[in-house]
Order: sequence, then structure tokens, then C-alpha cells
Amino acid sequence: MSPSAPLYEPLTPPDAGVREQALARQSMLTKPTGALGRLEELSVWAAACQGVCPPHIFARPRVVVFAGDHGIARGGVSAYPPEVTAQMVANIQGGGAAVNVLADVAGASVRVVDLSVDADTDPVVSAYKIRRSSGSIDREDALTHEETLRAVAAGRAIADEEIDSGADLLIAGEMGIGNTTPATVLIAALTDTEPVAAVGRGTGVDDAGWMRKTAAIRDALRRARPHVRDAVGLLRTVSGADLAAMAGFLAQASARRTPVIVDGLVVTASAVVAEALAPGAREWWVAGHRSTEPAHSIALRHLGLDPILGLDMRLGEGSGAVAALPILQGAVATLAHMATFDSAGVSNNTELEPEPDGAAAESN
Amino acid sequence: MSPSAPLYEPLTPPDAGVREQALARQSMLTKPTGALGRLEELSVWAAACQGVCPPHIFARPRVVVFAGDHGIARGGVSAYPPEVTAQMVANIQGGGAAVNVLADVAGASVRVVDLSVDADTDPVVSAYKIRRSSGSIDREDALTHEETLRAVAAGRAIADEEIDSGADLLIAGEMGIGNTTPATVLIAALTDTEPVAAVGRGTGVDDAGWMRKTAAIRDALRRARPHVRDAVGLLRTVSGADLAAMAGFLAQASARRTPVIVDGLVVTASAVVAEALAPGAREWWVAGHRSTEPAHSIALRHLGLDPILGLDMRLGEGSGAVAALPILQGAVATLAHMATFDSAGVSNNTELEPEPDGAAAESN
Repeated sequence: MSPSAPLYEPLTPPDAGVREQALARQSMLTKPTGALGRLEELSVWAAACQGVCPPHIFARPRVVVFAGDHGIARGGVSAYPPEVTAQMVANIQGGGAAVNVLADVAGASVRVVDLSVDADTDPVVSAYKIRRSSGSIDREDALTHEETLRAVAAGRAIADEEIDSGADLLIAGEMGIGNTTPATVLIAALTDTEPVAAVGRGTGVDDAGWMRKTAAIRDALRRARPHVRDAVGLLRTVSGADLAAMAGFLAQASARRTPVIVDGLVVTASAVVAEALAPGAREWWVAGHRSTEPAHSIALRHLGLDPILGLDMRLGEGSGAVAALPILQGAVATLAHMATFDSAGVSNNTELEPEPDGAAAESN
Repeated sequence: MSPSAPLYEPLTPPDAGVREQALARQSMLTKPTGALGRLEELSVWAAACQGVCPPHIFARPRVVVFAGDHGIARGGVSAYPPEVTAQMVANIQGGGAAVNVLADVAGASVRVVDLSVDADTDPVVSAYKIRRSSGSIDREDALTHEETLRAVAAGRAIADEEIDSGADLLIAGEMGIGNTTPATVLIAALTDTEPVAAVGRGTGVDDAGWMRKTAAIRDALRRARPHVRDAVGLLRTVSGADLAAMAGFLAQASARRTPVIVDGLVVTASAVVAEALAPGAREWWVAGHRSTEPAHSIALRHLGLDPILGLDMRLGEGSGAVAALPILQGAVATLAHMATFDSAGVSNNTELEPEPDGAAAESN
């Protein structure tokens, strides 16, 4: 494969016919059209992704947390020591992390996979491990070309496993001390953004750490610029096995016509790369929340995604996406289960003139 | 009772000691302090309301929808005919309205009560009925003084019934064609706001209707001004039996130390009155969402409430509050069920020096 060829042909979007049916059904539900705001858009999107209207409540939402360490973290760009990555992988396995608890409330299950943690982890989570840590991207490539391809393929295989096991909605999360640095570099490179406009404090680095992080991002960005039109080359140069795998996972979910709730900065960075690998992939995604990281908003704008929540979260793990899951399920439930004006005997504000195919004029 | 005396002594706030315990526990959970954003505040508030840390997931969240018609609706201020109120009461009883469907997803149950619907409704819902419709507030009082007191007492009795039946979290919702007009008048009167800055389109009135609504609000506001320091007088002059009952319900919930998720414009208007009836009541409330109605934001600011969601909803029924319920439950779950740095063996970024009473230094 040539390094610059996209991994996928342009993807087909969610079903436009079902989208029209869903819009028509929204206008027949016992409420003014538009009164449920974003919930209406979300319900229509979900129906189009599922290819059926009324849509069904997502039955097996699944969170996959991609874990990896980053050489750059040894340079003091984070508030936490790199050892925390492996500890948190065990914590997620044990059900004690924020993402586990929020997933329980939302009716989702959680899997954690070690792509590049700098420690030995449980064989259950390390089946797809590419290497221990990724390179320090301010001065060396994160991965070899071959590792990059293996990481992307791992992400694709994980998406296939989950979808083949019945997952009907996917959420990508991540855990890795220092991973907001490569994420910021990927976003800055692919959106042509200056480092100072993009760099944030991750999960809480101090002023001196912020300056080290900005310098590292500047250096890595210089190394990234030659590869901005070559998504695989960019992943090799300035990402990490975890981020590369997430890009493969997100692209493959879309190729498999499986909707995704995108999380915060790091997942959205991989999503920007996934859209480059698989043009049109973004049509299968919604953004769960807007994090406090400036580069996250830049990436969301680039992808045309308007986040569901704005709760000032900045944790990662998929926590913001899984917090938004009940909102998406609620949206689907309104389209699936609300009464219509006809069925409930409620007067509408316009005379509905149903057309033979069931479409209805949009009311005000 | 003198019409200007508050119905309640100033209320006691949620438990400050438990609040401190909750803040300390937040700093020991396996995540950077602050990384869960608003979820952390919500969890601390919930613990303080419950008076126990760790808090428990709310076991019996209950939505009560207050229904009533408004004389002003005959003046063309709404996009819908008044008959819709009774039809929607039946729809909510039958489980087909948006609030029912969203409550199912969120694990809440729904009750609808007819305070002043201009039709005969099911005896199950009309036990507290005050009258058929309330007066047209642009030119007459909404209620008599005696009706006002009965309506407020009805709301208090309903809160007592629900709490005595085990509800540990209450949500007020409303259904009533034309009810955004008295709501806007109450908010404008109590926040000294000009009509044109406060009036919105409700669930979708057109330009001519908007002008009629603005004129009605201006006229009603002129009638309201003499009563701005007399909450009961204000309810009598420019509210309705439904809004008066909601004010009693919200005040009584706080007096009974039961937390509430406030919904959109109409509920928040009653909340502004409830805070006047029972100073300090607002400490027991969170705002579920920010609706598209301008007066809603004015009322939220007045009460110092920062809404959880911003989904451009404008339906009422309690739909925005119940949509936010899973976020609140998720917040409580993180504080209740996440592992601590100690229990999970995860390194913190600061050396924790637990004090004898279990409090911990706040990390960065």
C-alpha cells in the first residue's frame, strides 16, 4: 500500500430516505415541531444510521478505551507520572474509573485495550499490544511505518469484533498520560493551527509544564508538517499506537455503518485522522461533549460536529461521550415511543395533510 | 394570614458539613480534581441535599406535571388552541407525551395534576382542581385571593404526598396552552425587566401572535407592578392556579429538604415566586436546561442557577429537567462508586496527606 493512499474508499452516508421518514414522523409527534431542539436532530440521525424509522433504543452500546504511553510524557508535559497509565488500565478493568461508573448509569459496557502501555498489563487487555510506549514525538517518530499499519489494523479489528458481537453504538475512549500532546499536534497539523492557539492544560499541568508542552508541540508540529496530506505518515510521525488504533477503530465503525459518540480532545484528534483515512466517516459520529481543551473545539469545528453536552469535563476515558449517551437514548425514545397527534387525538396547530407515502407537511 | 407575609421562614440550606466531606472525597477519586467539571459540583450538591456522603443514586425521582388553562390564550398568544391542554393531559396520563418517554429512559415516573384545565378531566388527575381556566391576566386577576391560597396549598400538599410516598428527587413540569405569557409576566415583574426583552415565541407563535403576546404581557405587567413585593398578591393578579400550585410545590420540596430539578420557562417562573415565598428554597434546586425563551435565562440568572443542558428545547412538560436527570444520576454515581487513589493503587499528582478526619488537601 502506498503511504499516501487512503485506507478506505469514500464511505456511504446514513440512509437519506430513512432520514426523510424520521423528519416526517417528528412533525407528527404530540409536540410542536422543533420543540425538542437538539433531541430531534439526534433522533433523526440515529434513525438514518440504523436505517429504520421508528428507530430502536440502542441495545448494546459499547465503550472501548484505548490505552498507551507516550515518550513525550517523560519530558514533564503532564501533571501525572507515566506509571499512572498502567494503574488506570487496571482500575478500568476493575470497574473503578469514571468511565465505568458513568457507563453503568447509561447502560453501556466498557472494554479497555492496551496498545502501547509502558508496562506489562493483563493478557486480557494486551492482545493487540503494538509496543511499550510510543516515541517522543518532539524528536523521533512515534512508531515505525509497519507499527503504524498494525495499530490501525488493530483498531479496525477491534471495531469488527465489537460489531460482530452485537454492539450497535460505539464509544471510543482513551487513557494515557501525556496523550493530549500528540492529540494537539495532530489537530494543529490537520487544521493548520498555531501551537499556542491549540495547547491546553490536559488534566491539569502547571505553568512550567504548559510551557514545556507548548515547546514539545511546536517541535513535533515542525516534524509533522511534511505529512499533512498523508494520514498514515502523520500517525507514524506524531501520534502513538493508541491514537493510530483509535483512528482505525473510528473509520471502521463508519465503514460498518455503526454510529459512534466521539469523546474529548484525544478521541476527536483520532477522529480527524479517521476522516482523512475514510472520507465521509464523520457522518456516522456525534460529539458527546465539549471539553475545556482549546484544540478540541478546533477539531469539532473542522469535523462539523456540535457537541451534545458542555459540562467543562476534561478527563478522557470516554467519560464525556458516555455521559451524553442517555441524551441520545432519550432522543431516540421520543421518536420511537411518543404518541402522534392522530393516535392521541391531540389537535395540531396546522391541518396535517398526510401524503400517500406517509410524509407530512412540516409545521411551524 | 397577611397577604404580604412569607409563607415560610427562611429555609435551612443543604448540609454544609456533608458538602465538605463530598469535596474531600472528590479529591481522592481516581481522576484529577476538577476533571469531571460540572459533574463534580452536581455530585457535591446532591450529597449535601441527601445529608450523606457518599450519596446514593436517587431511587425514586418523580415528575409532577401541573396543568391549567389561561384566559389569555383566547387572545391568540399561542400557536395552539386551548383544547390542546386537556388533550395533552390525557396524553400524559396515557404515557405518550415527550415527558413520559424521557422519564422512562431516565428511570423516573410521571404524575399529571389538573389545577385549572378548562375541561373536565379524569378524577384521578383533578382531585386538586381549583377552577376551570384562570383569568385573562391582561385585564383581570388570574385568581381570587382565596383561590390563590388554595392553589399554593394544593402544590404543598402534592409535594408532601410525593415525599411521603418515597420520592427522593422531584421534577416539576407543566402543560397549558398560553402559560408562557403569565410566566414571562411573573419573571419580568420580579426581575424588573421590560416586556420586549423577556417575551419569546413559546412553542412557536408567529409574528402577529408575538405582537399580541407582547401587548398582553405589557398590560399584565402594568397590573402586576403594585404587587412585586407580595408574592401571593402577584400570583393572584398575573399567574394561574397551575403556576401558583407549582410555586407551593417547589417551596415545600425545599422545606422538606428534597432536591428538585427545575425545568424551563414556566417552572422557573414559579421557582422565582417560590424563592420569594420561601427564601433559600433555591439552594435545593438545580436547573435542568436552558430553554430558547429569553425570560428563562433572565430567571435563571436571578436565581443563580446554571443549567445542566443547553439543547435548545422549548417544550415544557418537565422534558428538559427529566432529560438532565441521567446527568445528575451519573454525577452522583461517580462520587458514590468510583475508586479512590488509595483503593485502586493509583499514584496521585500530589502527595496526599490525609488528615485525621479524612479530609484531604485539594490537588491541582
